[in-house]
Amino acid sequence: MHLLITNDDGIYAKGIRVLAKELSMIAKITLVAPDRERSATGHAITVHYPLRVEPVSVDGAADAYAVDGTPSDCVKLSLEALLPDKPTMVISGINRGPNLGTDILYSGTVSAAVEGIIHGVPSFAISLDCFDDGPYYDVAAAIAKKVVLKINEHGLPPGVLLNINVPTVPTEKLRGIKITTLGTRRYRNVFDKRVDPRGRTYYWLAGDVIDLDDDIDTDTMAVKDGFVSITPVHFDLTDYRVMEQLKNWDLTI
Amino acid sequence: MHLLITNDDGIYAKGIRVLAKELSMIAKITLVAPDRERSATGHAITVHYPLRVEPVSVDGAADAYAVDGTPSDCVKLSLEALLPDKPTMVISGINRGPNLGTDILYSGTVSAAVEGIIHGVPSFAISLDCFDDGPYYDVAAAIAKKVVLKINEHGLPPGVLLNINVPTVPTEKLRGIKITTLGTRRYRNVFDKRVDPRGRTYYWLAGDVIDLDDDIDTDTMAVKDGFVSITPVHFDLTDYRVMEQLKNWDLTI
Repeated sequence: MHLLITNDDGIYAKGIRVLAKELSMIAKITLVAPDRERSATGHAITVHYPLRVEPVSVDGAADAYAVDGTPSDCVKLSLEALLPDKPTMVISGINRGPNLGTDILYSGTVSAAVEGIIHGVPSFAISLDCFDDGPYYDVAAAIAKKVVLKINEHGLPPGVLLNINVPTVPTEKLRGIKITTLGTRRYRNVFDKRVDPRGRTYYWLAGDVIDLDDDIDTDTMAVKDGFVSITPVHFDLTDYRVMEQLKNWDLTI
Repeated sequence: MHLLITNDDGIYAKGIRVLAKELSMIAKITLVAPDRERSATGHAITVHYPLRVEPVSVDGAADAYAVDGTPSDCVKLSLEALLPDKPTMVISGINRGPNLGTDILYSGTVSAAVEGIIHGVPSFAISLDCFDDGPYYDVAAAIAKKVVLKINEHGLPPGVLLNINVPTVPTEKLRGIKITTLGTRRYRNVFDKRVDPRGRTYYWLAGDVIDLDDDIDTDTMAVKDGFVSITPVHFDLTDYRVMEQLKNWDLTI
C-alpha cells in the first residue's frame, strides 16, 4: 500500500506526524502538506499565484513535501504532478479540533479528502476533538490504521469519503465506533465587534457552538457520548426531488 | 423585498453592479462583497485575522460595503452583524465565468449562497459563461429578476439553493430555461511546471476542461446547448446508503 497523507494544520503539526509514523508500519507513506496552518480554507484552490514545493524530512515518510498552498492544492498537485503513480488512499489529518456536522463545509481537512475522491482515490479525513497537542493523537492514529486496513479489504464506493472524529480520551475510555449522520452545528454571538486604536471598526469571527441535534445517530452526539464517529459523505449535490418542483414553475424567458 | 447581493469577483466587478441595478427595480438592495477578486476560495472563512468593512457607493444599492474577506465571510458578517433584519434572499453573482458541475465545490460564488441557506435565507448563485466584461450581463440580470419573483411566489425548500448558469448570447438566441443536474468536469494537463530565473521549480494550476457528460440533463450540456441552466443544490452530505454497508464492517476498537 502507498498512502498519501495531508492535513490543514501544516506539515509541522503533531497530528500528521503521529499519523505518518503509525501508518508507516503497514504502508509506504508520502506526506504532501501545507507549509503552515490553513484551517477554515474550505475547498479553496490556488489560482492567482504559483505553488512552490519544498522537500522536507518527516519520521516514517518515504517522501515529504511542504507546499505553500491549501490542503486541496496539496492533493491535486500530488495526484496530477508529484506522484508517479496513484496512491492506494488519501488520508487527511489528524486534525487538531473536530470536523463535525455542517462545519465540514468549511473544513480544509475534509476538502483534501474530497479532492482525493474527485480523482477516484479512496479517501478519509480524521480529526481529534481537542484544540491542543495533548496526548491522544496516538489513539486517533491507531484508529486510522484500522480504517486503512478495512478500506483495503472492503473498498469504498466511488464518490464517497469517510469523515472520522475521535473523542479526546484514552483508548480504554472509548465507548466504541459508531456509523453516524452529519449533525447540525450553529454558533452563538458569531462576530465580536471591536474598535482599533485609530477609531476604526473591525470584526473577529468567534462564537460558541450550539449543537442542534438531539438525535443520537449524529456525529456531534456520538463524539459527545464518547464514541469514535465515522460518517460516509457523498458529493452528489443535485436535489432531484426539488428538480421536479422547479419544472412546474413557469420559467419562460 | 430586501435582497442581499454578494459575489467573488469583488464589489467593483461589472456583474454585481449590473445585477444590483436591475434588481433595484423590484427590491431594496444591500451589497456586501469582497474588496477584490476572491475566486476559487471555496467555502473559506476568515478566522486568522479580523474583517474590515468599508462603506462604498454603488448605483441602485441602498447600502454597499466592501469587506476584506471571502464571499462566505461577506454573507456571514451581513446576516450576523451588519444587517438589522434578515433579508428576503441572498443572491451571489453575476459571476464572470461559469460555475458548473463538480466545479461548484471550488466556487466562492456558490459558497456565498450556501452560507445564505445555512442561515435559513432562500439563496441563489448566478454565473455568466464568459471570461470577460462582454455585453451579456444584462441578459443574466433579467433572468435573476425573473427568478427572484418566482422564489418570492413559490419559496424554496429549506437547505436548497439554486445554481444558475447563463450562456453568453443575446436574449433572443437563448433556447429557454432548463432544470438540470450537476455534470462532471475534469481537467487535462492540470499543472504547468516551470523553473524560475534562480533555478527553482514552481507549478501553475492550469488545464483544459473536459466535460465527461453526454447526458443532456446536466448543467454542462444545457449551457453548451444554449439553455439557461438552473440546478437545485442541497447539502445533506450524509450517504445513508453507505451507512448500512459500513455497519457490516467489523470495526471494534
